[in-house]
Amino acid sequence: MSKTQIKALVFDVFGTVVDWRTSISRQAAELGAKHGVEADWNKFADDWRAGYVVGVAKVNSGDDEWKIVDQIHRERLDVILDEYGFSMIDMDEEEKVEFNKAWHRLDGWPDSTDGLLRLKSKYIIASLSNGNIALLTNMAKYANLHWDAVLSAELTGKYKTHPRVYTKTAELLGLKYDEVMLVAAHNGDLRGAINAGLKAALVTRPDEYGDTKQTDLEPEPDFDFFAKDFHDLADQLGCT
Amino acid sequence: MSKTQIKALVFDVFGTVVDWRTSISRQAAELGAKHGVEADWNKFADDWRAGYVVGVAKVNSGDDEWKIVDQIHRERLDVILDEYGFSMIDMDEEEKVEFNKAWHRLDGWPDSTDGLLRLKSKYIIASLSNGNIALLTNMAKYANLHWDAVLSAELTGKYKTHPRVYTKTAELLGLKYDEVMLVAAHNGDLRGAINAGLKAALVTRPDEYGDTKQTDLEPEPDFDFFAKDFHDLADQLGCT
Repeated sequence: MSKTQIKALVFDVFGTVVDWRTSISRQAAELGAKHGVEADWNKFADDWRAGYVVGVAKVNSGDDEWKIVDQIHRERLDVILDEYGFSMIDMDEEEKVEFNKAWHRLDGWPDSTDGLLRLKSKYIIASLSNGNIALLTNMAKYANLHWDAVLSAELTGKYKTHPRVYTKTAELLGLKYDEVMLVAAHNGDLRGAINAGLKAALVTRPDEYGDTKQTDLEPEPDFDFFAKDFHDLADQLGCT
Repeated sequence: MSKTQIKALVFDVFGTVVDWRTSISRQAAELGAKHGVEADWNKFADDWRAGYVVGVAKVNSGDDEWKIVDQIHRERLDVILDEYGFSMIDMDEEEKVEFNKAWHRLDGWPDSTDGLLRLKSKYIIASLSNGNIALLTNMAKYANLHWDAVLSAELTGKYKTHPRVYTKTAELLGLKYDEVMLVAAHNGDLRGAINAGLKAALVTRPDEYGDTKQTDLEPEPDFDFFAKDFHDLADQLGCT
């Protein structure tokens, strides 16, 4: 486990850097209140997120053409707005477009802004999310995430965990694959990075799914780092 | 001339944000001193830069395959190192690779860091340079340029002033073309942006070429803004 050759840290974002579930649930509740719709808004967030998971898988399998995550979110949104009873309501296109950008307005975990700044003092830090560039750029402004570079699967033509996402990202940074470490709260994503030749750091986010998350709380044996948050990772990497 | 719909400012970098000529000249002089080579190092910088201009033009014309600016710089470097007498010297590959990254270590103009922060308070700010992502990312760290996003011609497959560079950049930001304004010190670049449907702001940098620059000190009639530096532009755009 060598620390010395790591030059860049690239970060999974949804769940690892930002608390998408609480943020989406809150914004959905606001939309519901505005229109007089009541529901379990955590479930609404989970249902919306489930459409994303299916959507990126269909792109990678070739069952669907390339589409950015904003579009995947929107297609799913149209389905669940109907399921949750918003179809009875006069929501115009402009309001749907705006609400779809709820994913651009996700709050960081409490350690995200400051922890990333500590890591930035020693390493290049960049997003490496399936989220599209516009989404990630707006989110960074909203949540005070001071990336050195906003990188995305959008720039690679594949979604994680396709190996090309990881290798192309290292190439864009002008680095060898093993000079780049993925930081993520999801073992599957980290397994993808390892398989592509990158290094891997698991940061656990046990609250990502509320009380329900049971997985990805322990690293696999060949992961390089294991931390409980970004400050812990910064400590382990010798950042001031 | 409407200010209201501009949502993102994208910046030409070489000459507009950073003083490439002084920075390259200084680093070349250091290399010369190390190896006992004497020369006009401003001319060395100009000669290196000339290779870049030819290199990107050959890519856009189809006379050359796609190559990133780091590679274009390196091919030219090998020629001018020979012309300036470095061929007599034992410069190994590692030293050449490192010196080629002189373009990753360019100083901002005196107003660049703070002026960009003022503009960032109201707009998305992103690079839009022919320089590759690695070059721009390293430069941003070196020169304290706090971009919201590092965008580059590398992501578009063409070099400026091909219209696709400008339109693809707006698309990556999720914006309409006329919601994005290019800020540049070069009228030709701004003409390319206008032709592609973006807005244009000329910021003059009369010292870019030392005492020799005579052009691009006045805007063309259809440019949207004309400023003497980034603070002046921030004032005109109502940034605090």
